[in-house]
Amino acid sequence: MTLPLEVRLQSVEDRLAIADLITRYGPAADAGDSSSIGNLWAAGGTYTFDQTTLAGDDVAGLVGLDTHQAFMSNGCAHFLSSPRIDISGATAIAVNHSIVLEKQGETWVAVRVSANRWELANSGGVWKVKHRSAQLLNGSENARHLFR
Amino acid sequence: MTLPLEVRLQSVEDRLAIADLITRYGPAADAGDSSSIGNLWAAGGTYTFDQTTLAGDDVAGLVGLDTHQAFMSNGCAHFLSSPRIDISGATAIAVNHSIVLEKQGETWVAVRVSANRWELANSGGVWKVKHRSAQLLNGSENARHLFR
Amino acid sequence: MTLPLEVRLQSVEDRLAIADLITRYGPAADAGDSSSIGNLWAAGGTYTFDQTTLAGDDVAGLVGLDTHQAFMSNGCAHFLSSPRIDISGATAIAVNHSIVLEKQGETWVAVRVSANRWELANSGGVWKVKHRSAQLLNGSENARHLFR
Repeated sequence: MTLPLEVRLQSVEDRLAIADLITRYGPAADAGDSSSIGNLWAAGGTYTFDQTTLAGDDVAGLVGLDTHQAFMSNGCAHFLSSPRIDISGATAIAVNHSIVLEKQGETWVAVRVSANRWELANSGGVWKVKHRSAQLLNGSENARHLFR
Repeated sequence: MTLPLEVRLQSVEDRLAIADLITRYGPAADAGDSSSIGNLWAAGGTYTFDQTTLAGDDVAGLVGLDTHQAFMSNGCAHFLSSPRIDISGATAIAVNHSIVLEKQGETWVAVRVSANRWELANSGGVWKVKHRSAQLLNGSENARHLFR
Repeated sequence: MTLPLEVRLQSVEDRLAIADLITRYGPAADAGDSSSIGNLWAAGGTYTFDQTTLAGDDVAGLVGLDTHQAFMSNGCAHFLSSPRIDISGATAIAVNHSIVLEKQGETWVAVRVSANRWELANSGGVWKVKHRSAQLLNGSENARHLFR
Protein backbone atom coordinates (compact mmCIF):
# COMPACT_ATOMS: atom_id res chain seq x y z
CA MET A 1 0.00 0.00 0.00
CA THR A 2 2.87 2.39 0.75
CA LEU A 3 4.49 3.74 -2.39
CA PRO A 4 8.26 3.57 -2.95
CA LEU A 5 10.18 6.52 -1.51
CA GLU A 6 11.22 7.72 -4.96
CA VAL A 7 7.60 7.91 -6.13
CA ARG A 8 6.57 9.77 -2.98
CA LEU A 9 9.45 12.20 -3.29
CA GLN A 10 8.68 12.84 -6.96
CA SER A 11 5.12 13.71 -6.00
CA VAL A 12 6.39 16.20 -3.41
CA GLU A 13 8.79 17.72 -5.93
CA ASP A 14 6.03 18.07 -8.53
CA ARG A 15 3.81 19.88 -6.04
CA LEU A 16 6.58 22.26 -5.00
CA ALA A 17 7.59 22.91 -8.61
CA ILE A 18 4.05 23.93 -9.53
CA ALA A 19 3.72 26.15 -6.46
CA ASP A 20 7.08 27.70 -7.27
CA LEU A 21 6.09 28.36 -10.88
CA ILE A 22 2.95 30.24 -9.85
CA THR A 23 4.83 32.13 -7.13
CA ARG A 24 7.03 33.63 -9.82
CA TYR A 25 4.19 35.43 -11.61
CA GLY A 26 3.53 38.25 -9.15
CA PRO A 27 7.03 39.66 -8.70
CA ALA A 28 7.66 39.40 -12.47
CA ALA A 29 4.43 41.28 -13.23
CA ASP A 30 5.25 44.05 -10.74
CA ALA A 31 8.79 44.40 -12.07
CA GLY A 32 7.60 44.53 -15.69
CA ASP A 33 9.82 41.53 -16.38
CA SER A 34 8.29 40.12 -19.55
CA SER A 35 10.90 37.43 -20.14
CA SER A 36 10.36 35.91 -16.70
CA ILE A 37 6.63 35.83 -17.38
CA GLY A 38 7.25 34.21 -20.75
CA ASN A 39 9.33 31.50 -19.08
CA LEU A 40 6.35 30.39 -16.98
CA TRP A 41 4.23 29.45 -20.00
CA ALA A 42 4.71 26.52 -22.35
CA ALA A 43 5.24 27.36 -26.03
CA GLY A 44 1.85 28.30 -27.45
CA GLY A 45 0.34 28.68 -23.98
CA THR A 46 -2.55 31.07 -23.41
CA TYR A 47 -3.85 33.46 -20.76
CA THR A 48 -7.50 34.50 -20.63
CA PHE A 49 -8.59 37.33 -18.31
CA ASP A 50 -12.00 38.96 -18.47
CA GLN A 51 -12.90 38.72 -22.21
CA THR A 52 -9.31 38.87 -23.47
CA THR A 53 -7.13 35.92 -24.51
CA LEU A 54 -3.40 36.33 -25.04
CA ALA A 55 -1.40 33.60 -26.80
CA GLY A 56 2.28 32.87 -27.36
CA ASP A 57 4.53 35.91 -27.09
CA ASP A 58 1.58 38.15 -26.28
CA VAL A 59 1.42 36.59 -22.80
CA ALA A 60 4.88 37.92 -21.93
CA GLY A 61 3.93 41.15 -23.69
CA LEU A 62 1.14 41.91 -21.23
CA VAL A 63 3.48 44.07 -19.17
CA GLY A 64 3.54 46.49 -22.10
CA LEU A 65 -0.23 47.02 -22.10
CA ASP A 66 -1.34 50.55 -21.20
CA THR A 67 -3.30 49.30 -18.20
CA HIS A 68 -0.28 47.40 -16.87
CA GLN A 69 2.10 50.33 -17.43
CA ALA A 70 -0.30 52.59 -15.53
CA PHE A 71 -0.38 50.13 -12.62
CA MET A 72 3.42 50.08 -12.48
CA SER A 73 3.68 53.85 -12.73
CA ASN A 74 1.21 54.41 -9.89
CA GLY A 75 2.63 51.55 -7.79
CA CYS A 76 1.09 48.09 -7.82
CA ALA A 77 1.24 44.63 -6.30
CA HIS A 78 0.09 41.49 -8.08
CA PHE A 79 -0.59 39.47 -4.96
CA LEU A 80 -1.45 35.78 -5.45
CA SER A 81 -2.57 33.26 -2.87
CA SER A 82 -1.00 29.82 -2.49
CA PRO A 83 -2.65 27.54 -5.02
CA ARG A 84 -4.75 24.47 -4.41
CA ILE A 85 -3.00 21.90 -6.62
CA ASP A 86 -4.36 18.67 -8.08
CA ILE A 87 -1.88 16.61 -10.10
CA SER A 88 -2.81 13.84 -12.49
CA GLY A 89 0.28 12.33 -14.08
CA ALA A 90 1.89 14.88 -16.37
CA THR A 91 -0.91 17.42 -16.09
CA ALA A 92 -2.21 19.45 -13.18
CA ILE A 93 -4.86 21.97 -12.25
CA ALA A 94 -4.14 24.74 -9.77
CA VAL A 95 -6.57 27.38 -8.54
CA ASN A 96 -5.89 30.49 -6.52
CA HIS A 97 -6.87 34.12 -5.96
CA SER A 98 -5.09 37.11 -7.43
CA ILE A 99 -5.40 40.69 -6.28
CA VAL A 100 -4.09 43.77 -8.05
CA LEU A 101 -3.45 46.49 -5.49
CA GLU A 102 -2.89 49.95 -6.95
CA LYS A 103 -1.61 52.96 -5.03
CA GLN A 104 -4.24 55.70 -5.01
CA GLY A 105 -3.39 58.65 -2.77
CA GLU A 106 -1.91 57.45 0.51
CA THR A 107 -3.19 53.86 0.39
CA TRP A 108 -3.43 50.88 -1.92
CA VAL A 109 -6.78 49.85 -3.36
CA ALA A 110 -7.81 46.38 -4.60
CA VAL A 111 -8.79 47.32 -8.15
CA ARG A 112 -8.93 43.72 -9.44
CA VAL A 113 -9.73 40.54 -7.46
CA SER A 114 -9.91 37.40 -9.57
CA ALA A 115 -10.41 33.67 -9.41
CA ASN A 116 -7.65 31.86 -11.29
CA ARG A 117 -7.48 28.39 -12.81
CA TRP A 118 -4.11 27.23 -14.11
CA GLU A 119 -3.78 24.27 -16.45
CA LEU A 120 -0.23 22.94 -16.26
CA ALA A 121 1.75 20.28 -18.06
CA ASN A 122 5.02 18.52 -17.36
CA SER A 123 7.34 18.15 -20.31
CA GLY A 124 10.75 16.58 -19.77
CA GLY A 125 10.46 17.04 -16.02
CA VAL A 126 9.62 20.74 -16.21
CA TRP A 127 6.19 22.11 -15.33
CA LYS A 128 4.84 24.99 -17.42
CA VAL A 129 1.52 26.81 -17.79
CA LYS A 130 -0.59 25.67 -20.74
CA HIS A 131 -3.52 27.95 -19.96
CA ARG A 132 -4.47 30.41 -17.24
CA SER A 133 -8.00 31.70 -16.82
CA ALA A 134 -8.72 34.66 -14.54
CA GLN A 135 -12.19 36.07 -13.97
CA LEU A 136 -13.17 38.92 -11.66
CA LEU A 137 -14.93 37.88 -8.45
CA ASN A 138 -17.71 40.39 -9.05
CA GLY A 139 -20.66 38.18 -8.20
CA SER A 140 -20.89 36.49 -11.60
CA GLU A 141 -20.93 32.72 -11.98
CA ASN A 142 -17.96 32.92 -14.40
CA ALA A 143 -15.48 33.37 -11.59
CA ARG A 144 -17.03 30.97 -9.08
CA HIS A 145 -17.04 28.30 -11.78
CA LEU A 146 -13.22 28.38 -11.97
CA PHE A 147 -13.00 27.38 -8.30
CA ARG A 148 -14.97 24.15 -8.70
CA MET B 1 21.50 12.20 14.53
CA THR B 2 20.14 12.23 10.98
CA LEU B 3 16.69 10.67 10.72
CA PRO B 4 15.92 7.89 8.22
CA LEU B 5 14.82 9.13 4.81
CA GLU B 6 11.34 7.70 5.24
CA VAL B 7 10.79 9.61 8.48
CA ARG B 8 12.02 12.83 6.92
CA LEU B 9 9.85 12.36 3.85
CA GLN B 10 6.80 11.62 6.00
CA SER B 11 7.39 14.89 7.84
CA VAL B 12 7.50 16.77 4.54
CA GLU B 13 4.34 15.05 3.35
CA ASP B 14 2.52 15.91 6.58
CA ARG B 15 3.48 19.56 6.26
CA LEU B 16 2.33 19.72 2.64
CA ALA B 17 -0.90 17.87 3.40
CA ILE B 18 -1.82 20.39 6.11
CA ALA B 19 -0.96 23.35 3.89
CA ASP B 20 -3.00 21.79 1.09
CA LEU B 21 -5.98 21.24 3.37
CA ILE B 22 -6.07 24.88 4.45
CA THR B 23 -5.52 26.07 0.87
CA ARG B 24 -8.78 24.40 -0.09
CA TYR B 25 -10.94 26.55 2.19
CA GLY B 26 -10.88 29.83 0.27
CA PRO B 27 -11.92 28.65 -3.19
CA ALA B 28 -14.62 26.43 -1.68
CA ALA B 29 -16.02 29.32 0.36
CA ASP B 30 -16.10 31.63 -2.66
CA ALA B 31 -17.76 28.99 -4.83
CA GLY B 32 -20.38 28.23 -2.17
CA ASP B 33 -19.19 24.63 -2.24
CA SER B 34 -20.42 23.31 1.09
CA SER B 35 -19.44 19.68 0.54
CA SER B 36 -15.80 20.62 -0.14
CA ILE B 37 -15.79 22.66 3.06
CA GLY B 38 -17.30 19.77 4.97
CA ASN B 39 -14.55 17.46 3.71
CA LEU B 40 -11.90 19.62 5.37
CA TRP B 41 -13.24 19.06 8.88
CA ALA B 42 -13.12 15.87 10.94
CA ALA B 43 -16.47 14.43 12.01
CA GLY B 44 -17.72 16.56 14.89
CA GLY B 45 -15.22 19.31 14.16
CA THR B 46 -15.99 22.92 15.03
CA TYR B 47 -15.43 26.44 13.69
CA THR B 48 -15.58 29.47 15.94
CA PHE B 49 -15.58 32.97 14.40
CA ASP B 50 -16.34 36.10 16.38
CA GLN B 51 -18.85 34.88 19.03
CA THR B 52 -20.34 32.09 16.88
CA THR B 53 -19.42 28.40 16.99
CA LEU B 54 -20.55 26.02 14.25
CA ALA B 55 -20.31 22.25 14.78
CA GLY B 56 -20.69 19.17 12.58
CA ASP B 57 -22.79 19.74 9.46
CA ASP B 58 -23.30 23.41 10.36
CA VAL B 59 -19.67 24.09 9.39
CA ALA B 60 -20.34 23.07 5.78
CA GLY B 61 -23.64 24.91 6.02
CA LEU B 62 -21.98 28.27 6.59
CA VAL B 63 -22.14 29.04 2.87
CA GLY B 64 -25.93 29.22 3.26
CA LEU B 65 -25.80 31.96 5.90
CA ASP B 66 -27.32 35.28 4.79
CA THR B 67 -24.02 37.09 5.29
CA HIS B 68 -22.17 34.56 3.14
CA GLN B 69 -24.79 34.61 0.40
CA ALA B 70 -24.58 38.41 0.31
CA PHE B 71 -20.78 38.22 -0.04
CA MET B 72 -21.13 35.81 -2.97
CA SER B 73 -23.82 37.89 -4.64
CA ASN B 74 -21.76 41.09 -4.42
CA GLY B 75 -18.51 39.33 -5.34
CA CYS B 76 -16.06 38.12 -2.70
CA ALA B 77 -12.68 36.55 -2.11
CA HIS B 78 -11.80 34.53 0.98
CA PHE B 79 -8.06 35.11 0.78
CA LEU B 80 -5.90 33.13 3.22
CA SER B 81 -2.18 33.43 3.84
CA SER B 82 0.16 30.43 3.91
CA PRO B 83 0.00 28.95 7.39
CA ARG B 84 2.73 28.65 9.98
CA ILE B 85 2.55 24.94 10.85
CA ASP B 86 3.76 23.14 13.98
CA ILE B 87 3.31 19.36 13.97
CA SER B 88 3.47 17.18 17.05
CA GLY B 89 2.90 13.54 16.14
CA ALA B 90 -0.68 13.08 14.98
CA THR B 91 -1.79 16.60 15.89
CA ALA B 92 -0.80 19.98 14.56
CA ILE B 93 -1.44 23.68 15.04
CA ALA B 94 -1.51 26.04 12.08
CA VAL B 95 -2.03 29.79 12.19
CA ASN B 96 -2.64 32.21 9.36
CA HIS B 97 -4.50 35.34 8.27
CA SER B 98 -7.78 35.42 6.41
CA ILE B 99 -9.24 38.36 4.56
CA VAL B 100 -12.75 38.66 3.15
CA LEU B 101 -12.71 41.08 0.24
CA GLU B 102 -16.15 42.24 -0.92
CA LYS B 103 -16.85 44.15 -4.10
CA GLN B 104 -18.30 47.56 -3.28
CA GLY B 105 -18.69 49.84 -6.29
CA GLU B 106 -15.65 49.61 -8.54
CA THR B 107 -13.22 48.14 -6.02
CA TRP B 108 -12.94 45.39 -3.41
CA VAL B 109 -12.92 46.27 0.28
CA ALA B 110 -11.43 44.22 3.15
CA VAL B 111 -14.56 43.85 5.27
CA ARG B 112 -13.13 41.12 7.53
CA VAL B 113 -9.49 40.53 8.49
CA SER B 114 -8.96 37.75 11.00
CA ALA B 115 -6.32 35.80 12.87
CA ASN B 116 -6.88 32.06 12.49
CA ARG B 117 -5.75 29.12 14.59
CA TRP B 118 -6.37 25.65 13.18
CA GLU B 119 -6.20 22.54 15.36
CA LEU B 120 -5.63 19.53 13.14
CA ALA B 121 -5.47 15.79 13.67
CA ASN B 122 -4.19 12.89 11.59
CA SER B 123 -6.43 9.86 11.46
CA GLY B 124 -5.44 6.94 9.26
CA GLY B 125 -2.91 9.07 7.41
CA VAL B 126 -5.38 11.86 6.59
CA TRP B 127 -5.19 15.31 8.16
CA LYS B 128 -8.48 17.04 9.02
CA VAL B 129 -9.53 20.14 10.94
CA LYS B 130 -10.72 19.48 14.49
CA HIS B 131 -11.27 23.13 15.37
CA ARG B 132 -10.73 26.47 13.67
CA SER B 133 -10.84 29.73 15.59
CA ALA B 134 -11.00 33.06 13.75
CA GLN B 135 -11.06 36.43 15.50
CA LEU B 136 -11.10 39.86 13.87
CA LEU B 137 -7.82 41.76 14.05
CA ASN B 138 -9.56 44.85 15.40
CA GLY B 139 -7.12 45.73 18.15
CA SER B 140 -8.49 43.31 20.72
CA GLU B 141 -6.29 40.81 22.53
CA ASN B 142 -8.60 37.95 21.40
CA ALA B 143 -7.11 37.88 17.94
CA ARG B 144 -3.48 38.51 18.87
CA HIS B 145 -3.73 35.65 21.34
CA LEU B 146 -4.41 33.15 18.51
CA PHE B 147 -1.05 34.02 16.94
CA ARG B 148 1.03 33.10 19.98
CA MET C 1 21.57 12.57 -14.16
CA THR C 2 19.09 11.87 -11.37
CA LEU C 3 20.38 12.97 -7.99
CA PRO C 4 20.44 10.62 -4.98
CA LEU C 5 17.22 10.60 -2.96
CA GLU C 6 18.92 12.12 0.07
CA VAL C 7 20.14 15.10 -1.94
CA ARG C 8 16.71 15.62 -3.47
CA LEU C 9 15.01 15.37 -0.08
CA GLN C 10 17.47 17.83 1.46
CA SER C 11 16.63 20.30 -1.29
CA VAL C 12 12.91 19.93 -0.53
CA GLU C 13 13.55 20.36 3.19
CA ASP C 14 15.62 23.50 2.60
CA ARG C 15 12.86 25.03 0.49
CA LEU C 16 10.21 24.26 3.10
CA ALA C 17 12.39 25.53 5.94
CA ILE C 18 12.87 28.88 4.23
CA ALA C 19 9.17 29.20 3.43
CA ASP C 20 8.36 28.29 7.03
CA LEU C 21 10.79 30.87 8.39
CA ILE C 22 9.20 33.67 6.38
CA THR C 23 5.69 32.47 7.26
CA ARG C 24 6.49 33.10 10.91
CA TYR C 25 7.04 36.84 10.49
CA GLY C 26 3.43 38.01 10.02
CA PRO C 27 1.77 36.39 13.03
CA ALA C 28 4.70 37.41 15.26
CA ALA C 29 4.49 41.03 14.08
CA ASP C 30 0.73 41.18 14.67
CA ALA C 31 1.07 39.62 18.13
CA GLY C 32 3.86 42.01 19.10
CA ASP C 33 6.04 38.96 19.76
CA SER C 34 9.54 40.42 19.58
CA SER C 35 11.38 37.27 20.64
CA SER C 36 9.81 35.23 17.83
CA ILE C 37 10.85 37.91 15.36
CA GLY C 38 14.36 37.93 16.78
CA ASN C 39 14.58 34.16 16.29
CA LEU C 40 14.08 34.54 12.54
CA TRP C 41 17.20 36.61 12.06
CA ALA C 42 20.82 35.46 12.28
CA ALA C 43 22.99 37.19 14.88
CA GLY C 44 23.87 40.60 13.50
CA GLY C 45 21.20 40.39 10.81
CA THR C 46 19.60 43.52 9.44
CA TYR C 47 16.22 44.77 8.20
CA THR C 48 15.91 47.75 5.90
CA PHE C 49 12.48 49.27 5.19
CA ASP C 50 11.99 52.60 3.47
CA GLN C 51 15.07 54.63 4.55
CA THR C 52 15.49 52.88 7.92
CA THR C 53 17.88 50.03 8.74
CA LEU C 54 17.56 48.06 11.96
CA ALA C 55 20.39 45.78 13.11
CA GLY C 56 20.83 43.12 15.79
CA ASP C 57 18.40 43.43 18.70
CA ASP C 58 16.72 46.44 17.09
CA VAL C 59 15.09 44.11 14.54
CA ALA C 60 13.18 42.29 17.27
CA GLY C 61 12.54 45.67 18.89
CA LEU C 62 10.54 46.96 15.91
CA VAL C 63 7.30 45.90 17.59
CA GLY C 64 7.94 48.61 20.17
CA LEU C 65 8.09 51.41 17.61
CA ASP C 66 5.28 53.97 17.91
CA THR C 67 4.04 53.22 14.40
CA HIS C 68 3.88 49.48 15.14
CA GLN C 69 2.13 49.98 18.48
CA ALA C 70 -0.46 52.18 16.74
CA PHE C 71 -1.07 49.46 14.13
CA MET C 72 -1.62 46.88 16.87
CA SER C 73 -3.89 49.16 18.86
CA ASN C 74 -6.07 49.93 15.84
CA GLY C 75 -6.01 46.34 14.58
CA CYS C 76 -3.57 45.20 11.92
CA ALA C 77 -2.51 42.31 9.74
CA HIS C 78 1.00 41.85 8.38
CA PHE C 79 0.00 39.72 5.41
CA LEU C 80 2.86 38.18 3.38
CA SER C 81 2.65 36.25 0.13
CA SER C 82 4.38 32.91 -0.42
CA PRO C 83 7.96 33.64 -1.40
CA ARG C 84 9.73 32.84 -4.63
CA ILE C 85 12.85 31.03 -3.37
CA ASP C 86 16.21 30.51 -5.09
CA ILE C 87 18.74 28.46 -3.15
CA SER C 88 22.44 28.35 -3.89
CA GLY C 89 24.22 26.03 -1.46
CA ALA C 90 24.12 27.54 2.03
CA THR C 91 22.63 30.85 0.93
CA ALA C 92 19.29 31.74 -0.59
CA ILE C 93 17.29 34.66 -1.90
CA ALA C 94 13.54 34.87 -1.38
CA VAL C 95 11.23 37.60 -2.62
CA ASN C 96 7.61 38.25 -1.75
CA HIS C 97 4.99 40.92 -1.14
CA SER C 98 3.95 42.24 2.25
CA ILE C 99 0.82 44.20 3.03
CA VAL C 100 0.01 46.01 6.26
CA LEU C 101 -3.74 46.20 6.67
CA GLU C 102 -4.94 48.61 9.36
CA LYS C 103 -8.47 48.84 10.68
CA GLN C 104 -9.93 52.28 9.92
CA GLY C 105 -13.60 52.60 10.76
CA GLU C 106 -15.51 49.49 9.69
CA THR C 107 -12.96 48.16 7.20
CA TRP C 108 -9.27 47.42 6.85
CA VAL C 109 -7.09 49.59 4.61
CA ALA C 110 -3.80 48.63 2.92
CA VAL C 111 -1.60 51.35 4.39
CA ARG C 112 1.70 49.76 3.32
CA VAL C 113 2.35 47.45 0.34
CA SER C 114 5.98 46.49 -0.14
CA ALA C 115 8.32 44.41 -2.24
CA ASN C 116 10.56 42.26 -0.05
CA ARG C 117 13.91 40.64 -0.71
CA TRP C 118 15.21 38.24 1.93
CA GLU C 119 18.87 37.16 2.02
CA LEU C 120 19.12 33.92 3.97
CA ALA C 121 21.95 31.72 5.17
CA ASN C 122 22.15 28.16 6.46
CA SER C 123 24.34 27.65 9.50
CA GLY C 124 24.50 24.19 11.07
CA GLY C 125 21.40 23.09 9.19
CA VAL C 126 19.28 26.05 10.29
CA TRP C 127 18.15 28.79 7.91
CA LYS C 128 18.06 32.36 9.23
CA VAL C 129 17.58 35.83 7.75
CA LYS C 130 20.79 37.75 7.17
CA HIS C 131 19.12 40.77 5.60
CA ARG C 132 15.60 41.77 4.63
CA SER C 133 14.89 44.73 2.37
CA ALA C 134 11.36 46.09 2.01
CA GLN C 135 10.46 49.02 -0.23
CA LEU C 136 7.00 50.46 -0.84
CA LEU C 137 5.46 49.62 -4.22
CA ASN C 138 4.65 53.27 -4.86
CA GLY C 139 5.81 53.47 -8.46
CA SER C 140 9.49 53.99 -7.69
CA GLU C 141 12.20 51.82 -9.20
CA ASN C 142 13.53 51.01 -5.68
CA ALA C 143 10.81 48.47 -5.04
CA ARG C 144 10.64 46.94 -8.51
CA HIS C 145 14.40 46.41 -8.36
CA LEU C 146 14.01 44.03 -5.38
CA PHE C 147 11.86 41.73 -7.50
CA ARG C 148 14.47 41.17 -10.20
